[in-house]
Amino acid sequence: MHIDDLHKIDRELCYLKNVAALLGWDQETQLPPKGVEDRSEQLALISSLAHERLVSKATGAALDALGPGEELPALERDFLRVMRRTYDREVKLPAAFVADEARAAGLSQAAWQTARQNNDFAAFLPHLKTMLDMNRRKAEYWGFSDDRVYDGLLDLYEPSMSAADISAVFTPLRERLTALLQNIAAKPAPDVSFLNQDYPLDQQTAFNVQLLDELGFDKTRGRLDISAHPFTTSIGANDVRITTRYFSQNLLSTIFSVIHETGHAFYEMSFPPELRGTCLADGASMAIHESQSRFWENVIGRSRPFWTRLYPMLQSRFPKQLNAVPLDLFYRAVNQVKPSLIRVDADEVSYSLHIILRFEIEKQLFAGTLRPEDLPATWRRLMKEYIGLEPQSDADGVLQDIHWSMGSFGYFPSYALGNLYGLQIHRCLLAEVPDFETQVACGRFDEIQAWLVKNVYAWGARLTPSELLMKITGEKLSVTPFLEYIETKYTALYA
Amino acid sequence: MHIDDLHKIDRELCYLKNVAALLGWDQETQLPPKGVEDRSEQLALISSLAHERLVSKATGAALDALGPGEELPALERDFLRVMRRTYDREVKLPAAFVADEARAAGLSQAAWQTARQNNDFAAFLPHLKTMLDMNRRKAEYWGFSDDRVYDGLLDLYEPSMSAADISAVFTPLRERLTALLQNIAAKPAPDVSFLNQDYPLDQQTAFNVQLLDELGFDKTRGRLDISAHPFTTSIGANDVRITTRYFSQNLLSTIFSVIHETGHAFYEMSFPPELRGTCLADGASMAIHESQSRFWENVIGRSRPFWTRLYPMLQSRFPKQLNAVPLDLFYRAVNQVKPSLIRVDADEVSYSLHIILRFEIEKQLFAGTLRPEDLPATWRRLMKEYIGLEPQSDADGVLQDIHWSMGSFGYFPSYALGNLYGLQIHRCLLAEVPDFETQVACGRFDEIQAWLVKNVYAWGARLTPSELLMKITGEKLSVTPFLEYIETKYTALYA
Repeated sequence: MHIDDLHKIDRELCYLKNVAALLGWDQETQLPPKGVEDRSEQLALISSLAHERLVSKATGAALDALGPGEELPALERDFLRVMRRTYDREVKLPAAFVADEARAAGLSQAAWQTARQNNDFAAFLPHLKTMLDMNRRKAEYWGFSDDRVYDGLLDLYEPSMSAADISAVFTPLRERLTALLQNIAAKPAPDVSFLNQDYPLDQQTAFNVQLLDELGFDKTRGRLDISAHPFTTSIGANDVRITTRYFSQNLLSTIFSVIHETGHAFYEMSFPPELRGTCLADGASMAIHESQSRFWENVIGRSRPFWTRLYPMLQSRFPKQLNAVPLDLFYRAVNQVKPSLIRVDADEVSYSLHIILRFEIEKQLFAGTLRPEDLPATWRRLMKEYIGLEPQSDADGVLQDIHWSMGSFGYFPSYALGNLYGLQIHRCLLAEVPDFETQVACGRFDEIQAWLVKNVYAWGARLTPSELLMKITGEKLSVTPFLEYIETKYTALYA
Repeated sequence: MHIDDLHKIDRELCYLKNVAALLGWDQETQLPPKGVEDRSEQLALISSLAHERLVSKATGAALDALGPGEELPALERDFLRVMRRTYDREVKLPAAFVADEARAAGLSQAAWQTARQNNDFAAFLPHLKTMLDMNRRKAEYWGFSDDRVYDGLLDLYEPSMSAADISAVFTPLRERLTALLQNIAAKPAPDVSFLNQDYPLDQQTAFNVQLLDELGFDKTRGRLDISAHPFTTSIGANDVRITTRYFSQNLLSTIFSVIHETGHAFYEMSFPPELRGTCLADGASMAIHESQSRFWENVIGRSRPFWTRLYPMLQSRFPKQLNAVPLDLFYRAVNQVKPSLIRVDADEVSYSLHIILRFEIEKQLFAGTLRPEDLPATWRRLMKEYIGLEPQSDADGVLQDIHWSMGSFGYFPSYALGNLYGLQIHRCLLAEVPDFETQVACGRFDEIQAWLVKNVYAWGARLTPSELLMKITGEKLSVTPFLEYIETKYTALYA
């Protein structure tokens, strides 16, 4: 058995992943309403073909014959490690379990949608219990002992990161962010009532096209479309698509969605040729991927230098709405801190607190120290404690996110870890590109891009997140750079 | 082996066909330019998966065990016949031959593109010879004897129709159409210079949207997009997509593309529930499919009653260009007979002559009575004889169509046969819907649609084209209805 056999299997799996990505993208952006039913059958068929291929005897035999590949070049060893990991994950789950889980997740999502509409947690509770149980069994199949179930789930999204590792950073993060939030609450808020105007959609669209050009998004290798929830998807090495949405009364939403998804797209577009079409053409982890989208969205996109250049362009699209609004006020508006009950509406300061709350709840659920029926009360208590707000309804509380209904436990922490990774990486970037701010103010992103490609994107999935971080920064995961960034920025904004 | 096993295989094949259709649609309408390379790999993988599944031992065993299914209900017998036919076609071709053919076709298409640009038939000739040879071998694999090679190729698109059957209708068709064309040429042409104006694309687009509504195209089950060449594709039973193109100096092109493709889409959208997701959810043949697109485009779309209703709507989109143009002149413009060297620009009278020319050439090529190197001269001679024009270049002559470069021999006749089928069917429709013209003039297509669904679309691929025609009309294929229609219409137009 030669490694080329395994490469052939991997290539087919990548193409099937591309095909599934296209089916998904099309469903969110183009599909005629009544086409939904067939679409889920088509997706199910492609994923079952991919599953069959991955867990086939041929894959297992090739992996066993090749072992860790000690005599092979580094790239091939990394390839073997990632293939082995993916294979192990899937082969350990019995086919009947996978089918049961998919069915249960479908029912659970549908039940969640209705429960959320009706603000009826009790109706969702049995499904939540089923999904928790399914995840517990999954971690067991993967070989995690009873007291390490949550670690097993976290590991799927953030390889080799345990709940204890995450707690170690989330605890100081929570303390400092709640303190910062309280400080800000005591200061006067800027008057950003200019945001509450009508911003015509055709001009929002035209500005987004210009924004993509400014950022350097290569339209010969990707595209921007509209969907209910913004996302990024890779349909090929040269076909990375992002989406956004438009609200006539909300100019900022679409702009920051575009910048966020562009950050994801840059990562996906920058894998070197030798990784393309292989399982290594992927982010190091969910959180590392999120570090890039958040870096572009927040560190660059919500910075003063960025808007020094872009704001006049935006004003010329919306002269009636913005000509009387000075840059400084606009800059304050894009960084307005306004605690919200809803995670996806959260500002840069409170966002991580929403995540930490979910992490604490997931940890306790799998530790057995929190009963699912007590979730709404715990949610309200923690929201009050972390964000200072208490939801009046479960629809705006524990029922707000789709993730748990799909059985995605262990996914949320990525969002906040991304903030930490992003700022640790940013610190190294600043050391090597000291005129970072000037470059951003001039709309020159080539050097910044080149640095990110070389240090982050070019590695693809060859390293674990902690290995990658160590290679770039020489350090372990730390909250310090993020906290220093956010405290400096927001103390100045709310002086 | 139970028939349900075969249904399961068929269902998977249908979903894979849907997936391939989406990959193709996306390539023509959405794909970022640099995504092309990966896309052809994705398409190749899906078609090879479908091929493997179709020619698998399981399929062969099920077909052998079930035989013709004499004890089964009629629907299951039809299903078995179509499955058997598709299986036989594919299983008889060695995998190496299929791969060779795909590779040769790719090279040939590329060579044709360059040759056409450079007006260099000699450069394309070796590829043409290869494709002819491949088709000869294919017919042999399928079991057609040396003197019936062309019949074997025709049968792929038009089951059970031989070259002799087609000649029997094409000969009188050619004689009467050339005579009609000469009569028309002797009459004064209408002044349609109003067509040579600028028709803004946004208004063309808006009119097409209105046109779809007028025709009754269900937008919850399909969509209209833009591509270089108009086409219709089925991505699911409730996901039928059509495309058109826009030229600012050509208003009519996009309108008649939309009506033509809508005719195809109506067929695809109207298969009854018991055929959906099976191999029977297909047209009876290429020509029967074309009979529907041409029926909607020409018999309805180029009729006076149709424009009596639609023309005021069109004028209100283009008041500057059309308000001074009376309906009668517009009606003459959409039916202007103006012989062209180019098939796709041909009018309703001369179109079939372009097809008959290609049929005669294909017949002689496979009979060995025409050498490929003599094609350009033969083309020029026949064009002069049939259409009265002689191309100055091969680019506008023998090199104009993509079909032969792809190895599609035997496909062209469908286009002209569609005209004949369409008018034979129309005659029966008129007998049962005598106020056809009034309904068209009122924009009421529900009764016409219902008749077509019941008599044509509901059968899907259950009957061969001649069986379907016999069931609808009680007759064999005949040129009479088409010739009567076209002679009556155009004698009146050019009185």
